[in-house]
Amino acid sequence: MSLLVLGTVAFDTIETPFGKADRIIGGAGTYVAWASSHFYSDIKLVSVIGGDFPDSELNALKDRGVNMDGLEVRQDEKSFFWAGRYHNNMNSRDTLATELNVLENYAPVLPESIKNVDYLMLGNFAPAVQKSVLDQLESRPKLVAMDTMNFWMDIAMDDLKAVVKEVDVLTINDEEARQLSGEYSLVKAAQVILEMGPTHLIIKKGEHGALLFHKEGMFYVPALPLEEVFDPTGAGDTFAGGFMGYLAKTDDFSFENMKRALVYGSVVASYCVEEFGPNKLKEISIDDIRNRTNEFLGLMDISMPVLA
Amino acid sequence: MSLLVLGTVAFDTIETPFGKADRIIGGAGTYVAWASSHFYSDIKLVSVIGGDFPDSELNALKDRGVNMDGLEVRQDEKSFFWAGRYHNNMNSRDTLATELNVLENYAPVLPESIKNVDYLMLGNFAPAVQKSVLDQLESRPKLVAMDTMNFWMDIAMDDLKAVVKEVDVLTINDEEARQLSGEYSLVKAAQVILEMGPTHLIIKKGEHGALLFHKEGMFYVPALPLEEVFDPTGAGDTFAGGFMGYLAKTDDFSFENMKRALVYGSVVASYCVEEFGPNKLKEISIDDIRNRTNEFLGLMDISMPVLA
Repeated sequence: MSLLVLGTVAFDTIETPFGKADRIIGGAGTYVAWASSHFYSDIKLVSVIGGDFPDSELNALKDRGVNMDGLEVRQDEKSFFWAGRYHNNMNSRDTLATELNVLENYAPVLPESIKNVDYLMLGNFAPAVQKSVLDQLESRPKLVAMDTMNFWMDIAMDDLKAVVKEVDVLTINDEEARQLSGEYSLVKAAQVILEMGPTHLIIKKGEHGALLFHKEGMFYVPALPLEEVFDPTGAGDTFAGGFMGYLAKTDDFSFENMKRALVYGSVVASYCVEEFGPNKLKEISIDDIRNRTNEFLGLMDISMPVLA
Repeated sequence: MSLLVLGTVAFDTIETPFGKADRIIGGAGTYVAWASSHFYSDIKLVSVIGGDFPDSELNALKDRGVNMDGLEVRQDEKSFFWAGRYHNNMNSRDTLATELNVLENYAPVLPESIKNVDYLMLGNFAPAVQKSVLDQLESRPKLVAMDTMNFWMDIAMDDLKAVVKEVDVLTINDEEARQLSGEYSLVKAAQVILEMGPTHLIIKKGEHGALLFHKEGMFYVPALPLEEVFDPTGAGDTFAGGFMGYLAKTDDFSFENMKRALVYGSVVASYCVEEFGPNKLKEISIDDIRNRTNEFLGLMDISMPVLA
């Protein structure tokens, strides 16, 4: 019944108007794993790190039940590194440095122990790497979700579309949905993308929430308005992790349950942005998640009598 | 039991990526009146026009039950005119021309017949004009809402704050909430603004929906994702009109009912943007509003079992 997670495990240096964090733990795989671990315990990580990655961080994930059979450790190389600076509004950022290091020639080889899984989250990675993981599985998982970004649309659109064709759920942001579909209207963009393969499209809009498109309908989850957004890094990956963790926990892919998973994605993402890196995700309890879920439900709660 | 509406009645020339509309009917008062007329029939308009304004447009509003006792007609002058061009994304626009004309020295004098009203919508206008209308009323309405814009914050902040102090509901967009409060976080901005006088703050976020802040809680209404946004002009005024029209109809200012009014505001605004000017607002029926309300409720509908 495992949830297999592909995603980078990396170092980030982050500057925000609130301060700077040097070489903290980051990467899509890290955020997805931490977020999903609050809902589901049988998680297997596929990634690559260098010898510079601290054992303590790996052990913290292992303590959450994350299996590391698929983690390649290259002792003589360095982990992936990204540095970025957020602007005042936290909605845009500049990349200051990208050092691929171990990612440069990464071609994951899945051990037998992780080739049979029920749920697969293909975190943002080169589309060829995402496809290679999918192709190495012995049977098709019940549910496959993928994240990606504009960078891959710019340099590897054909590869990207080949993966998109194979997945059930695609999670991208609004600009990426426009780029992938060639349509400005998100409704039209969703129509085009749902013809490309996925049965579900999630369009992430950052502080403006997220939209779920499916042939049965549309659903909107807001982002929780917060007093402070401290560091948005990893919020999208955290969202995907909460979403997939809840679906793995419940093993129910009905539209109704997908909507609930979307809310849980937004709930954990709201915690993610409150501290630098994945720190807050390490601290929160299931009760915290329940309480914040109630805040979300309050934000969305409406009962409307029919208009007389 | 009347709803008094202050707002401009004007001509707009609008360019969008979909085409151009020359000297069509516009103005906050026009949009508020049309929108609220779908919910409530006892509407009184306070505004000023020139001799160039077509009788047919006034008659169309009169046919909706809109009382014109407070409409000043200056036969020898020209109506207010605005011209603007929307960018490709429809979220930003350039003003190409503003001709104040009759607005230049407008000081409304309310006839006795409209000095006793239960509901007041102070549409976007010079704060001194908004205040003057409020001051001329014989008794304080049960509910006073106001809209404003960044322009008045730039040139008449003290006047603006004097009106804000007197109203129950303030409707502004996110950037205006930040400018008025000096806080970037909308949660903090709302805390500051709710100390300035209003009991309710509505922050409009265009295609991203709207937030209601009140001491009892927060509520979020999405905007309906549409295949085409044809012309966003007047959407905020339409939102305010639907909101106030529903509140006047129901005469219930509980938080629960304010939330419903917010949904109806978003419902009529979703129609407004589908055609140039207020045209669509003239065409829709109560059944259209009911049907679209159901689409909104679908977008927001969630049932969450407690997380195990």
